[in-house]
Amino acid sequence: MTEQTDSEGRLRHLLTLEGLPREALVALLDRAGAFADGFDARDALAGTAVCTLFFEPSTRTRLSFQRAAQRLGADVLGFDAATSSTTKGETARDTLRNIEAMGVRGFVVRHSGDGAVAELAAAAKAGTTLVNAGDGRSAHPTQGLLDMLTLRQALGEDFASRRFVIVGDVKHSRVARSDLHALRTLGAGEIRICGPASLLPGDDTLAGCTVTHDLDAALDGVDAVMMLRLQRERMEEGLVASLDDYHRDYGLTAGRLRRASADAVVLHPGPMNRGVEISDEVADGPQSLILRQVANGVAVRMAVLEALLA
Amino acid sequence: MTEQTDSEGRLRHLLTLEGLPREALVALLDRAGAFADGFDARDALAGTAVCTLFFEPSTRTRLSFQRAAQRLGADVLGFDAATSSTTKGETARDTLRNIEAMGVRGFVVRHSGDGAVAELAAAAKAGTTLVNAGDGRSAHPTQGLLDMLTLRQALGEDFASRRFVIVGDVKHSRVARSDLHALRTLGAGEIRICGPASLLPGDDTLAGCTVTHDLDAALDGVDAVMMLRLQRERMEEGLVASLDDYHRDYGLTAGRLRRASADAVVLHPGPMNRGVEISDEVADGPQSLILRQVANGVAVRMAVLEALLA
Amino acid sequence: MTEQTDSEGRLRHLLTLEGLPREALVALLDRAGAFADGFDARDALAGTAVCTLFFEPSTRTRLSFQRAAQRLGADVLGFDAATSSTTKGETARDTLRNIEAMGVRGFVVRHSGDGAVAELAAAAKAGTTLVNAGDGRSAHPTQGLLDMLTLRQALGEDFASRRFVIVGDVKHSRVARSDLHALRTLGAGEIRICGPASLLPGDDTLAGCTVTHDLDAALDGVDAVMMLRLQRERMEEGLVASLDDYHRDYGLTAGRLRRASADAVVLHPGPMNRGVEISDEVADGPQSLILRQVANGVAVRMAVLEALLA
Repeated sequence: MTEQTDSEGRLRHLLTLEGLPREALVALLDRAGAFADGFDARDALAGTAVCTLFFEPSTRTRLSFQRAAQRLGADVLGFDAATSSTTKGETARDTLRNIEAMGVRGFVVRHSGDGAVAELAAAAKAGTTLVNAGDGRSAHPTQGLLDMLTLRQALGEDFASRRFVIVGDVKHSRVARSDLHALRTLGAGEIRICGPASLLPGDDTLAGCTVTHDLDAALDGVDAVMMLRLQRERMEEGLVASLDDYHRDYGLTAGRLRRASADAVVLHPGPMNRGVEISDEVADGPQSLILRQVANGVAVRMAVLEALLA
Repeated sequence: MTEQTDSEGRLRHLLTLEGLPREALVALLDRAGAFADGFDARDALAGTAVCTLFFEPSTRTRLSFQRAAQRLGADVLGFDAATSSTTKGETARDTLRNIEAMGVRGFVVRHSGDGAVAELAAAAKAGTTLVNAGDGRSAHPTQGLLDMLTLRQALGEDFASRRFVIVGDVKHSRVARSDLHALRTLGAGEIRICGPASLLPGDDTLAGCTVTHDLDAALDGVDAVMMLRLQRERMEEGLVASLDDYHRDYGLTAGRLRRASADAVVLHPGPMNRGVEISDEVADGPQSLILRQVANGVAVRMAVLEALLA
Repeated sequence: MTEQTDSEGRLRHLLTLEGLPREALVALLDRAGAFADGFDARDALAGTAVCTLFFEPSTRTRLSFQRAAQRLGADVLGFDAATSSTTKGETARDTLRNIEAMGVRGFVVRHSGDGAVAELAAAAKAGTTLVNAGDGRSAHPTQGLLDMLTLRQALGEDFASRRFVIVGDVKHSRVARSDLHALRTLGAGEIRICGPASLLPGDDTLAGCTVTHDLDAALDGVDAVMMLRLQRERMEEGLVASLDDYHRDYGLTAGRLRRASADAVVLHPGPMNRGVEISDEVADGPQSLILRQVANGVAVRMAVLEALLA
């Protein structure tokens, strides 16, 4: 039993994909698949209030959750704690408990601190549910789910016969961690990790993965390439020599993509640094599923909000 | 007849609790009590537009009104005039009249100027209604109402046999002023005021109150302790020596609270400065009604919006 | 066929009034007239998502579109790209395509670049529709439409017998350009342009207009005076000597307005610089239709959104 399930194994919050049972994960993907096909459930959350509580700004993720909540008929409230002057001196916990007291049952929370969302979930009262919309470098479970839905639509449900590669700044990426958790749960055949040594984690994050610093080798024969965004501040921190160097060594170009399986697919969580980690030709090419990921994001978030709140 | 009622005594705006007849105040509290118990009225304001027009930022109050409007089925528009660059050079009155012209009937207005909301109400056209969500140091009537609802739920309707104390920066507090107006109207038995001389008003605000600078004496035997937030800038202004000193002299601790009646209740309008005007133990303790106040805030604002707009 | 219509002449986007056929323009005005009279169509866009995508801030125009979308029952999403930190490094096109992928069909777009909205429309997928809410100095078609609706209500449909004057900074004004396009399409009898030489365009924008730098002469016998806002930065750019000088030469005062037809009407797109381009007496006087314009703005935007999305 993880903190996100109750004593009978029901999901109370969605904090991480780590340890989420395969059946729970697959059930969410199945339901999300129906929503992605256009199924709506306008009455599912009618009268229910959902608050996007962002201690770290993110317009795109917030919009995606907002759209998901709208399609379920929920009332949406937004609290941009990152820019709010009125919460100065107030703890995140007090902010949560206040909005909770206003009758809000669902919270979509982003925070820069590792584990911060789980801490808030522990402070929430019974009946309140939290969705982690990204905390520190730890987890971004709905991104992991939408990536899995996208891969499943493209490759089918049998992940055991497939090879996946995650490329880039894995060290600082909550997306990569949530993807790894889900890929393992779904029984991915092989998971490769590729990036410069300075951007790969030293802990057991990569347990069971094939690690390489050579992108050409990493791409060889893979079925799915999952690119990560390079935060430009990594250069200032000295972790990357230059964006040009990074592109030369770790940028996905059409030429390089030919090393992958002929029908390999390309994912990117966005927003893209075009010409850095990915070329225009690949980003907009026939193997790119990047906009499909965005579409699936709304569907996955509908499935999560419905499962937690309906 | 005050400015906020029409020639037949009907409420046209809610600008202040000062002079609001007891029957009107009690009717709002009764209705709010029903909303606090979960009663919804989704059709009450269907199709009606309510605009939160904030010339001074306040995320929490804005959210509370927004949630109230949602529960009544209203369409909500937000105009954060404090950060809007497009209203530069435009008067508050022109901003109001413009949004009014868009077909918005209800306005929830916060402004840093004393009397500014009443001035705007005077400029509004017939059929438009304004709720004062806080103006300067003058009034915050919905906070006063939610405090009264909270007190009534805890202490019953007979205020005449009860002792109340308001502690802290009364001088700069619109919350204190609205509480005082309402407590007098509801016939509070005794109203004590406690704070350092530098933070107490010199005018007739405190008429009829027992004033003391000694918190221990102020708490003796009271039924309700209404704490005020200490704005940290009071220190820079030289009105408070230090936060530590303030806490020592005017901070509500569990030890001090024992001087009050055994079942005394504690209120605070939030956001709290924990460890300054209130200790964690009290804020989170069994006598604290602070989150109940927040919940009642939505209910009271529903009652007000319904009374003015339905 | 312009870019904004499909191969059968149906409106796919509303980018400009230039070249919009008279029948299409009149149909929008007729429908807007019904909405201005209070007609609602809450089911017209139920379940349809409309995103206000503003690369240049504008609270008033955004609110007006938001209210229009609400009255049609649409779900509204707001993306303030001007202040969003998450789109740094992302192209406007990628931002559009991402929100589009979230299932948003309608976009209300403002951008500081001339032609930027048309470029985005060219990148949108089939089924997506864009409304230009102002691009650079080029076009602000819904402002043009609301001005025409306001003029039509006041003067009747026969524009051929009427004289119109546009006063002020025509050079930098997308409002003026859209008004000119519409006035020509509706067969305005005479269009006069008045402003200092430094604020009048040198290209063929004013083709067919009577141009003068003398406001008294320009006002003589006109039926409608359409004032433009003076951006205060024009002074820093040296295009205007001082605000006082501007007011003396080009400010509309009650005295000057007497030169116009006795029942001449005054328009201004807002926000006004009172005492600069317009005096209080005129702005708030009986001939002013300025608030009527704001009301018509919602109606016109309803007509446009319905035509494009329903």
